[in-house]
Amino acid sequence: MTNLPPPLPPTLAWRGDAHGHLELLDQTRLPHERIVRQLRTADEVIEAIATLRVRGAPAIGVAAAFGLVLGVRALSPLPQALPSVARDVAMRLAAARPTAINLRWALDQCLDALRESPTLDTLFHAAEALWSDEVATCDRIGQHGAPLVPEGGTVLTHCNTGRLATVGCGTALGVLFTAWRTGRRFRVLATETRPLLQGARLTALELAAAGIPVELCADGAAAGIVARGGVQMAIVGADRVAMNGDFANKVGTYGVALACAAHRVPFYVAAPISTFDPRVANGAGIPIEERDGNEVTSLAGISIAPAGVAARNPAFDVTPGKLVTAFVTDRGLLRPPFDAAIKGLFAPGR
Amino acid sequence: MTNLPPPLPPTLAWRGDAHGHLELLDQTRLPHERIVRQLRTADEVIEAIATLRVRGAPAIGVAAAFGLVLGVRALSPLPQALPSVARDVAMRLAAARPTAINLRWALDQCLDALRESPTLDTLFHAAEALWSDEVATCDRIGQHGAPLVPEGGTVLTHCNTGRLATVGCGTALGVLFTAWRTGRRFRVLATETRPLLQGARLTALELAAAGIPVELCADGAAAGIVARGGVQMAIVGADRVAMNGDFANKVGTYGVALACAAHRVPFYVAAPISTFDPRVANGAGIPIEERDGNEVTSLAGISIAPAGVAARNPAFDVTPGKLVTAFVTDRGLLRPPFDAAIKGLFAPGR
Repeated sequence: MTNLPPPLPPTLAWRGDAHGHLELLDQTRLPHERIVRQLRTADEVIEAIATLRVRGAPAIGVAAAFGLVLGVRALSPLPQALPSVARDVAMRLAAARPTAINLRWALDQCLDALRESPTLDTLFHAAEALWSDEVATCDRIGQHGAPLVPEGGTVLTHCNTGRLATVGCGTALGVLFTAWRTGRRFRVLATETRPLLQGARLTALELAAAGIPVELCADGAAAGIVARGGVQMAIVGADRVAMNGDFANKVGTYGVALACAAHRVPFYVAAPISTFDPRVANGAGIPIEERDGNEVTSLAGISIAPAGVAARNPAFDVTPGKLVTAFVTDRGLLRPPFDAAIKGLFAPGR
Repeated sequence: MTNLPPPLPPTLAWRGDAHGHLELLDQTRLPHERIVRQLRTADEVIEAIATLRVRGAPAIGVAAAFGLVLGVRALSPLPQALPSVARDVAMRLAAARPTAINLRWALDQCLDALRESPTLDTLFHAAEALWSDEVATCDRIGQHGAPLVPEGGTVLTHCNTGRLATVGCGTALGVLFTAWRTGRRFRVLATETRPLLQGARLTALELAAAGIPVELCADGAAAGIVARGGVQMAIVGADRVAMNGDFANKVGTYGVALACAAHRVPFYVAAPISTFDPRVANGAGIPIEERDGNEVTSLAGISIAPAGVAARNPAFDVTPGKLVTAFVTDRGLLRPPFDAAIKGLFAPGR
């Protein structure tokens, strides 16, 4: 009846009770191989996050929470000073990727719970709660964002922000999935997202699986296509949003935002409230992870550069809030001025 | 004494007299293989241009001129209506790539000579003259541009504009080679230039061979590195310049220009006068070649995207003249307002 590819295994799955294990779809092997890995230690989770077997700010938050469960479980018998020992494990997990704030936020949620009641079950239930919260958060982002999608238009997106980046329907892609499910019809232009090709490998896969028309382009081609009127809206995710609306996202996002601003194409950022960092005033305060240059000098395992030539490889860039039309959050749209709108999120009593 | 890689074979070489053949370094196989191909027919030259075995606006102009020699030589005995038959061959050569104007310009030069004196030798000598003119043109561009390079700075460049793109020292890279030879010291940040990776494969190779420090980055990373103050000057080539200063160059150039404009980094375009098209008023009039989407969805025969997903693949984009600090030409720098400066190039009596 349909030519859609078979559904993907879940991004993450926990098998069993607090003594179970984490299963993870290895995203470095997509789209051509579907390999599910079983993780039983915090170190295995750290390795999976650092190597991008699991990636996407919300997904690595959930993976890290269960990594903390695995790390604490290995301490047998549980030490008297469990919360402080757990904090050490959490710090190692958080260090696996420095830019996305959700990772720290998720671990903080679990550590808070552990301080209340220092047992493995507490931690496990905190991780489970985080998981179901993330699913609901994606649903709300999708509902708030879906009406923005222009009927009959082309939507540009960068990197991957779908089911594979979250444990729900996604953030920016969640908006597109929700719009499509509610009958809106549109096309997607997905940048391939060098160096690790999350757009080509993952976003194209998820959109095609949902039956949404998608075309890829090289990252450098996006600006020219925008200039020629080929895009009516852009939507991306975020790894950390500063209090003034500056945000870090996958490297290449800033260029997309500049092109959209130059041609008055609405540019939206879909992210849960947990992505906003009340401790960071502006983009200059967001640490940018610099990854191994080999990710640039090789492509799909093939060396593409002369031997001995090195590469700069910042994994993220910072887009100024002034280029953002609105943030699509689980609490609705935030529009400029962002200082006030974001401050409101953290006001006492919310 | 040095770790520099061995020198490359010449980009193009003609062996023998008018009855000789064209040799071409196959650039699709660089940096890992150095394969020199012998071309003996116009069709072989058309294939080499269309598949980018030879690329770069000035180099394909020279290759096409010798392709015309090969195509005309095959007509034996030479027809009475040689100029018009040669024009048909030239039109087929010109159609191999539609954006770069140098290709047509070079063929027009040869056809003009043929109208004066319809012999194979005339055509051969016209092609030879074009070749030596191109070498001198690169030298002059290099001399005019070298003083612009900031001592101790980092220069961003996109795609390849060196010896491999010309038959001389290059255009934008010619400026850098000349600056380096005259003692200026600087670093180069080269974008990899997807989809065909001319930056990673060719520019890195040429700069490393000259001993100039070079680092690569993903195309999408350039804007963020510019924003963080990592670049003091950008210089690129051009495939066609309109009369108002809008210009077409390798896809991704526009994004580099937007980032430089946003952060007040000088953005230069190095191109011979033959790249300026007096028949095109502005960028909207420049045809943009759309190439096969497979160049985006695969690399070296390996698929990097899900089966069945297509890609947009414009080979060029158009950058508005308002983002250009100056054009570096063989007749010196052209500064804004470009309408007047470019009109001056074509004024009678020049």
